Amino acid sequence: MRILSGMRPTGKLHIGHLFGALNSWIKLQEEGNECFYFIADWHALTTHYNDTEEITKNSFEIAKSYIAAGINPEKSIIFIQSEIKEHAELTLLFSMFVSVSRLERVPTYKELKQQLSDKDLSNAGFLIYPILQAADILIYRADGVPVGEDQVYHIELTREIARKFNYLYENVFPEPEPILSKITKLLGVDGRKMSKSYGNIVPLIATKEELRKKIMPMITDPARKRRTDPGTPEKCPVWDYHKAFGITKEDAQWVKNGCTTASIGCVDCKKLLLKNMLSTLEPIWERYDKLTNEYVKDVICEGNKRAKEEAQKTMELVRNAMKLDYTKYLK
Amino acid sequence: MRILSGMRPTGKLHIGHLFGALNSWIKLQEEGNECFYFIADWHALTTHYNDTEEITKNSFEIAKSYIAAGINPEKSIIFIQSEIKEHAELTLLFSMFVSVSRLERVPTYKELKQQLSDKDLSNAGFLIYPILQAADILIYRADGVPVGEDQVYHIELTREIARKFNYLYENVFPEPEPILSKITKLLGVDGRKMSKSYGNIVPLIATKEELRKKIMPMITDPARKRRTDPGTPEKCPVWDYHKAFGITKEDAQWVKNGCTTASIGCVDCKKLLLKNMLSTLEPIWERYDKLTNEYVKDVICEGNKRAKEEAQKTMELVRNAMKLDYTKYLK
Repeated sequence: MRILSGMRPTGKLHIGHLFGALNSWIKLQEEGNECFYFIADWHALTTHYNDTEEITKNSFEIAKSYIAAGINPEKSIIFIQSEIKEHAELTLLFSMFVSVSRLERVPTYKELKQQLSDKDLSNAGFLIYPILQAADILIYRADGVPVGEDQVYHIELTREIARKFNYLYENVFPEPEPILSKITKLLGVDGRKMSKSYGNIVPLIATKEELRKKIMPMITDPARKRRTDPGTPEKCPVWDYHKAFGITKEDAQWVKNGCTTASIGCVDCKKLLLKNMLSTLEPIWERYDKLTNEYVKDVICEGNKRAKEEAQKTMELVRNAMKLDYTKYLK
Repeated sequence: MRILSGMRPTGKLHIGHLFGALNSWIKLQEEGNECFYFIADWHALTTHYNDTEEITKNSFEIAKSYIAAGINPEKSIIFIQSEIKEHAELTLLFSMFVSVSRLERVPTYKELKQQLSDKDLSNAGFLIYPILQAADILIYRADGVPVGEDQVYHIELTREIARKFNYLYENVFPEPEPILSKITKLLGVDGRKMSKSYGNIVPLIATKEELRKKIMPMITDPARKRRTDPGTPEKCPVWDYHKAFGITKEDAQWVKNGCTTASIGCVDCKKLLLKNMLSTLEPIWERYDKLTNEYVKDVICEGNKRAKEEAQKTMELVRNAMKLDYTKYLK
C-alpha cells in the first residue's frame, strides 16, 4: 500500500503527535508500506499567513523529529509540501469542479472559524484547504491515509474528488482509505487540550530535567486536593499518560489501588510515569542528538526529489486525462 | 513599461478580438513596451472544465493568430499560462489573504453566474479566478494591463492584492494600471453580442469567400425592410464595422447620404465594407498562411522559457518576503 500523511509546521512536535500520528506512521512503515510523510507548510499559511517567521525553521525541525521518532529515511520518503509545486497546480485544477457550497459544508470549516476566533479564517485559502489536502493525497495516488477521527471527513471529500475526476476525465486516481489507529488522546499538563497556544504541551524533544519540570506539576484528579484524599485514575490526565507510555499490568494495579485508597500520592504516581516516559523518549532524544543538520538536509532533499518525480508522473496523467497536454503542439 | 494581457482559448479569434484587444496590444508593442501576451488556458477551465477537448488546439491556434495579427515575437513574449506552473503557486499563496466575501463581491461573479446559466459556475475555481488573474499579472510585475471596461474592476482587485502583499510581507509588487483604449464594439452578424455560442462571429482568419458569406447576409437597420426604405446608419451594426475598418470621410458621407435617402441599398454599403475589411484582413491572412506550425511552436517554446524565467524571479522574491525560502536549510 502507498501511504501518505503530514503535519503542519506551526510549532515543535509534542508527545501528542507521537501517540496521535507518528507511532502509527512507524507501524505502517515497518509493515512494508511505501510511505510518504510530509511537512504541510502551505497548510500552515491558512491559519498563519501573517505569522510566517518560524515556518521554515519548524519544518526543518519537524523533519528532524520525524527521523528521531523512528521514520526511517531508508524506508520512507520525507518531504516538504511547498517544494513540490505540483500540489498547487493540482489544487487549481481540482478547484474547477469542486463547488463552493460543498466546501462550506465541510464540518471543520465553520467549527475552526469559531474555535480560532483570534485568527483571520475568512480567506479563500482556508475555504479551499480541503482541496489542497485532496491534492496532497491524490498527487501520490495514495491508497491509505493515517488520520485522526476529525480528519475522516476530509478523506471522504478526497474520495469524492477522486471519483469526480475519474468520472469527468479518465480513471487516474484510486480512492484512498482513511487508516484509523487506536490512539490515546493525551491532554496538556493543565488538563486542557494539548495545544501550543495554551502553553501546556509536553515537547517530544526535551531534556530529562525539562520533562520532569513539565510532568511533576501536572494537574491530576481535582478530587485529590490533599495527599490523603482518594482519587479516580479515570478522571486523571496522568492515567492516560500511563496508558500511552506502556505501564505494566502490575504497575497499573499499584497505581489504581494506591490512588483510590490514597495510599500513594500523585508524586509517587508521576515518578513512575517519568520512568516509563524516559524509556520511550530517551532513545528518541539520543537519535535526535546524533542527527546532524547536514544529514537531515540530505534526507529532505532526497525526499523532495523522490516526491517530485512521483508528483510529476501523476500530473502527466492528469494533464493527459484533462486534455491539457501540449506535447503534441510544443515538444 | 511592462505590459501583460491574455485571452481565453475557448474558441477561434474573431474580428471583435482585433478591435477589442489585439490592435491595442500591437500599439503598445510598437511604442517600445516590454509586452507579455499569453493564452489563459487555466481560465478557460473555470467555465469549460467539462469540455476541454479543444483547449490545447485553440491555444496553439490563438498564438498563431496573435502573430498573424501583428504581435511580433522579436519584440513581445507569447506564452501559454498552464506551462508556467508558478501562476498556480502564486494563486495559492494569494488565496491565503484574500477573503471569500471580497471575491463574492466581484461584480462579474454574480453577473456571469446569471448570464452563463447553462454552465456550472458553482465551482471554487470560478470564485477564485480573480486571484488567478491577479497572479497572472503580478507574477510578471506588470505596470500596465490593456483591458476592456468590464475588466477594470479586476485590475482594481489586483492592485488591492499587490498592496496587501506589500503591506503584510515586503514590497515586491508594483500596482498595475488598467490601460483602456478607444475600442469600437462590433456586434455579431445577427445584431446580438458577438459570441461563439450565438454562432454569429466573423472569424479573424478566413477566406475571402467565407468573409463575403458572413457579411452579405448580415443584419442591418431593421427600418430598411425594402430597398426603398431609408435607414439610419447609427442603428445599423454595419456602420460600426465601417468605422472599425477605417472608412474614409468621403465614403462615410456617401454611406450616410445613401442610407438616409435610400439612394444606395444595403448590398452597396456592404460591398464597400467588404473592400475595406479585406484591406485590413488580407495582410493578416497572408501572414497567417506563411506561418509554419514549426515556427509557431518555436515562438511559444521560447516565450514560455522567457516567461518562466521572469515568473521564477518573482517567486524567489515572494518566497523570500513570505519567509518560505528554504535556501538556508536545504540548498
